[in-house]
Formats: sequence, C-alpha cells, structure tokens
Amino acid sequence: MPQLSERGFKMPASPIRKLVPYAENAKQRGIKVYHLNIGQPDIKTPEVAFKALKNFNVKTAEYSHSAGNESYRKGLSEYYKKVGINISYEDILITTGGSEAIIFAFLATMNPGDEVIIPEPFYTNYNGFAVQAGVKIVPVTSYIENGFALPPISDFEELITPKTKAILVCNPNNPTGYLYSKEELMQLSQLVLKHDLYLFADEVYREFCYDGEEHFSVMQMEGLEKNAVLFDSVSKRYSECGVRIGALVSRNKELISTALKYGQARLSPPLFGQIAAEASLKVGDEYFDEVYNEYIERRNYVINALNKIDGVFAPMPKGSFYAVISLPIEDAEDFCIWLLKDFDYKGETVMLAPAQGFYSTPDAGKNQVRLAYVLKVEDLKNSVKILEEALKVYKK
Amino acid sequence: MPQLSERGFKMPASPIRKLVPYAENAKQRGIKVYHLNIGQPDIKTPEVAFKALKNFNVKTAEYSHSAGNESYRKGLSEYYKKVGINISYEDILITTGGSEAIIFAFLATMNPGDEVIIPEPFYTNYNGFAVQAGVKIVPVTSYIENGFALPPISDFEELITPKTKAILVCNPNNPTGYLYSKEELMQLSQLVLKHDLYLFADEVYREFCYDGEEHFSVMQMEGLEKNAVLFDSVSKRYSECGVRIGALVSRNKELISTALKYGQARLSPPLFGQIAAEASLKVGDEYFDEVYNEYIERRNYVINALNKIDGVFAPMPKGSFYAVISLPIEDAEDFCIWLLKDFDYKGETVMLAPAQGFYSTPDAGKNQVRLAYVLKVEDLKNSVKILEEALKVYKK
Repeated sequence: MPQLSERGFKMPASPIRKLVPYAENAKQRGIKVYHLNIGQPDIKTPEVAFKALKNFNVKTAEYSHSAGNESYRKGLSEYYKKVGINISYEDILITTGGSEAIIFAFLATMNPGDEVIIPEPFYTNYNGFAVQAGVKIVPVTSYIENGFALPPISDFEELITPKTKAILVCNPNNPTGYLYSKEELMQLSQLVLKHDLYLFADEVYREFCYDGEEHFSVMQMEGLEKNAVLFDSVSKRYSECGVRIGALVSRNKELISTALKYGQARLSPPLFGQIAAEASLKVGDEYFDEVYNEYIERRNYVINALNKIDGVFAPMPKGSFYAVISLPIEDAEDFCIWLLKDFDYKGETVMLAPAQGFYSTPDAGKNQVRLAYVLKVEDLKNSVKILEEALKVYKK
Repeated sequence: MPQLSERGFKMPASPIRKLVPYAENAKQRGIKVYHLNIGQPDIKTPEVAFKALKNFNVKTAEYSHSAGNESYRKGLSEYYKKVGINISYEDILITTGGSEAIIFAFLATMNPGDEVIIPEPFYTNYNGFAVQAGVKIVPVTSYIENGFALPPISDFEELITPKTKAILVCNPNNPTGYLYSKEELMQLSQLVLKHDLYLFADEVYREFCYDGEEHFSVMQMEGLEKNAVLFDSVSKRYSECGVRIGALVSRNKELISTALKYGQARLSPPLFGQIAAEASLKVGDEYFDEVYNEYIERRNYVINALNKIDGVFAPMPKGSFYAVISLPIEDAEDFCIWLLKDFDYKGETVMLAPAQGFYSTPDAGKNQVRLAYVLKVEDLKNSVKILEEALKVYKK
C-alpha cells in the first residue's frame, strides 16, 4: 500500500476538532448550543456585492489575470489610500483568501527549515501554512496579565537564529483582540532592520478597532519598504468569508514578482469573488459604522459581564472580535467538552474554543478559552449566564 | 536587506513569458495576433451557471465546508456515475481549481525530495506545484513519432527509485492531445501496485475525446482503490476557468482525510464558484454535443491543414484541445519570437507556445510547438496560412 507523507501527519488539527462530535450530540439531544467558538460573523455582506454579481454579464467565465483584475487592484489601492496606506496597485497581488497570501509569502521568502517568530497565542492556521511551506514557527509568548501586549523586544531577539527570516504579527489580533500600538510596531521595525528580517502583518481585522484607537499598519512605516509585507482579506471587512479574496501587499518588488510566479502556477484568483470584492469597495462609512456599533456593544457587554464572574479574567480587547479569557479551572479543553457533553442550563449550553490550540508552547494557556463575540447581545447574555452557572457546578 | 527563498528562483517561468512583450508590441504596431498559445476556450459557460448566481439569495457570504458544499459533492458523485465512475461523495474534496487538488495530493503523499514520474511533454504548471511541495518531477519522454503514446513501461521502471512515490498522467493530455487507452492504463496500474506507488490522473479534459474513443478513468480500475487519485476541474468541462472549482477524488480515505487538513487550513473553496459549478451539473448532452461538434471541426481542419505544409508533422490528437506539432526549423522559441517580432502576413501573425517549456529534458522538443485550437475555424484557416507563409521565409 502506498504511504502518506510525514508532513501530512504534522498538519495540526483545529482547536475545536475534539469538541465537534460533542456539539453535534448535544444538538441531537435537543440542547441549544451558542457558538462562541467560531469566526464566522453574522454581519450582512454589503448588498452591492450581490448586486454586482447579479449584473455581471459575460458569456464565458474566463481566467482573470494571475495577479487579479487590474480594476480591482487599482480600486484596492484607493481603499488603502483612504486608510492611510499609500500603495501602488502594482504592489498588490490578489490572492485566494488571506490564506493564500500567507502561503505565497512563506514560499517566496523562506527556505524549508527556516523560522518565523510569532507572538503566541496565534491564529492556529498559521501552523498549517508553516507545515505546507516546510518552515518552523518559533513562538514568543504574550501574556493575559497585560492583555497580550507585544512581548519585550529582548524576548524576540533571544529567539533569532541564522534561520530566522521573519516576524509575523496579527494586528488587530486573532485570537486575543489585542491592538498593537505604533510604538510596539516601531520597536519591531528596528529589530527587523537590524537583523534583515521580513515583518509580516496580518491586518484582516483592520476595520475592527475600538475606543477611538487608530490602526497603524506596517505599510505606514518608513524605511521598511523591503521588509514590510501585508496580508489582507475581504472576509471580515465585508463579511465575505466565502468569496475567498485576499491580497498580498508589499513595496518589495522582487518579493511580489516571486509570489506572482506561484500565482501564475494556479492561474488566477476566483473571478466571481473579485467582482463581489471590487463592488464592496463602494460601501460607505455607514456600513462600517453599523458594524462597529454592533461589535462595540457586544464587546462591552460580554467583557464586562465575564469579568463579573468569580475567577474569570477577560482583558478588554481593543480590536478584532475575539477575546482570550482565563477561567477558574485547570483544563479548558476538558471544561469545554464537559459544557457540551454533561451540562446544560435550561436546555442551553455554550461552545468555546480551548485556547491551548492557539499556543505552541506545551501547556501554555491551559486555563484559557477563546471566544468570538459574533452573536447578538441577547445571545451573549444567555451565553454568559450559562458559563456562570457552569463554573458553579463544574468539578464540584 | 532580507533575502528571497531559493525555491522562489526555482519557480519556472511560463513557456510563453518571453513572447508576451513581443505580442504586445506587435499589437501596438497594428498587427492582428491569433492566439493559439493559450488554453482559454472561447466556448460559452452554461447559462444555468450565471442564472444560479443571479438567484443565489443569502444575507451573508459565509465560509462553505472545507471539503466543499455537501450538495455539490453529492451532485458531483452523480455526475461521476453518469460517466461510469462509481464514487461516494465522501471520496470527493472540492478544491480551488484543479491546481489545488494537485498541490494537496503532492503534500499529502510525498515528503520533500520525493519523486513523481510524469510523461513529457507535460503541463508546465506541474513544475510550479512540485517546487511548492518540494518534490521532484522525473520525466519519462514520450515521442511525436507515435503521437505521444505512453512510453514503454520499462522506461518508467528504470526511473523508479526509493524516493519515487507516484506516477502522474494527464488524460486526455495537455499539451499533446493524446488519449491513453485502457490497455496503457492497465499497464500503469500493474506497475504502481508492484512498487506501491500512487497513480495520479489529471482528467480535466474528460469530455474532450474524439473519434468515438471512450475515456477510461483511473477510478474505473479495480484493485487500485488505495493508489488511484483523480484531479478534476470544471474549468474546461463547462468553460468555467475563472470560477476556480476543482476536485480531489480518491477511495483512499486516509489520503482524503489528510488532504482535508490542508483544506481546513485554507478554510473553504470559493462559495460563488461552487454555486455556479453545482448548477452546471444540470446541463444536458446537448451542451457537450455542441462543444464536441465545434472542437472536432476545429481539430480536423487544423491538423489536416498543418500536415499539408511542407516539413510540418502534426499527429492527430484523440482528446483535449491541444496539439504538439513539429516544424521544419531548429529552434521553436526563436521562430515563435520571430513570428511576433519580424513577420506578418497581410497585417496578421500567430502566437504559438514553444514546446520546449513542456519538457524537462534539456533540448527535447526544440523544433516543436504547442497549439490550442480554441479559435473558430475561420481564424484557424488564417493562422495556418500565416504559418505556411512564415515557414517559407523564416531564415531563408
């Protein structure tokens, strides 16, 4: 019998994989499950996106350009100007979701065995992309005590080896909700310049910044033209997760032209997704205002309510729509399974993601869970109540 | 300055990359260029595909399942039944184009440094996918003299090393148009069983078989359940190149579940493309009959006309819509550039793909070009006339 590859076995499972059968079983038993475990927003996609698809009249659904439709790339560069990023459309490669932007960047900049330093906890799919590219993620731990702020630069510097090629930050952060400050990013910028590294920034939650805080992009830093690489996506910005349109952005022309070779091999990004994404560029501030108002209400409610529960600590996130919180328990995975398997409050329970899957360091974050506040406040109220009641009886 | 990866430099350029600026220049000079160099068919996409998109009413464009929409996977398994392939929907993974199916299969079955044997000339993007997965393509040469039939099994066997993990055939073939017979595939089947290899088959041109020849799929072979892996796509079948929907199909459940892990890392295949592809399953035989009639007329015209030119040899392709032909010249790349740069016949010229880019062996196929007969017969007539006139004066 032919064998499978070793790297296939190294591909990480999703942090919630073990929980899924329990959730399904709970539903079969008639239990209502509030899903705080996922990043699929319930926000409406802008109507202009669907309208553009309805009005898209061609006879043949042809390949688009491997770098993406020029009209969309030009439109996207206008969007970037509006958010303070001055970039030419030639510095933009349209990708199949943000995922492909990350893979292309890894492939273009790192050899197999090279290392990228990432503050943990981090978005788990980075692990999958690293396995795919044959590179190694070196975690630098951030801590809940200071809201998952950027670890001291000395912590990064200690981890740099001849194999280190890049530092990757997700800003605002999934899973922590932390928003890196301009000062923190300037420190990173000094570090990458000193060691000739790339600074990758996953900024797909750019529009989700709260409390008047401004997002600062790696593309806004001077002197970093060769080092700064931006990963972007329309998935969260316009609630268009399914359209699979992202972007790889860099002023480093050699990097973009190398990444484009991978783009040429796969021919083109999705045609219909680009039509929807380009049309979405027309949405006005009122769309984002509505989304913002919805999320800030949810965030304020859920974080404040969680902190009122005995033993729960939830730092106030400044961005994205996630939070990593600590619970008065020892093993969050066991607790999350128990919530689905053995607990309900008035016929309802809640599904959370154990945070351990977002860490590389063994046992780190073992008493933490990630939650996505992608449900309406009414549902969040019920969820918090369920969690409170659950903690009263779990292992008592 | 940060460095680019070594593998980025290994990424192959397209066989027509050098020609593109000359083609653009020719157009600027007012020369009409017939594009026989590309695989973008001019055939209409089924109207049901566009109609389904117009009627697709959701509020949020959500992620689909990482394996693809279940309804589409089930519909696709019905399509396979109709073409004689008995397969469960659970053996099907929907991918972002056929490209992603190939990458996932390479990653799931081969370690970096492993080898896959492919008859040359072959689809050039296999090179890009191989670099991406860190695996090595070992070519086994097929020859124009017998129409690019499967090389003798002994030629394959000589190339097998402990690192060989798979054999890949494209059937019907891009670039040669050759259709592998059941007997040839049975020989390959014995070989892969003997050496515990995978048999990958890229069957995206399944619908394009001529002269009453029947397509025989690797999925129709008994005893090959663990070894046979099918790459598929709607790009050519329904002229939906831009929708980026393909499939990875295998009865080897471990392989599918490993590939799915890569699918989970990138979250989901394109949503809108799946809607279009699923709707296209409804097209009847009349769609394929019309396409078939168009292509067979084009093929018969162009191949017969080419063979009438002094020194040109064009084997009659039994499938796909490509042909590799030999010309009475020494260096096809030089000739193809000259056609664009220095030649025109009544203000018109033709763009062809030098076949050398489809070979791995240095200097193989140096006097050959690939043409795609994706233009209407009238344009093909003009193209052949241009070629005939060009050969009269080239280097004379």
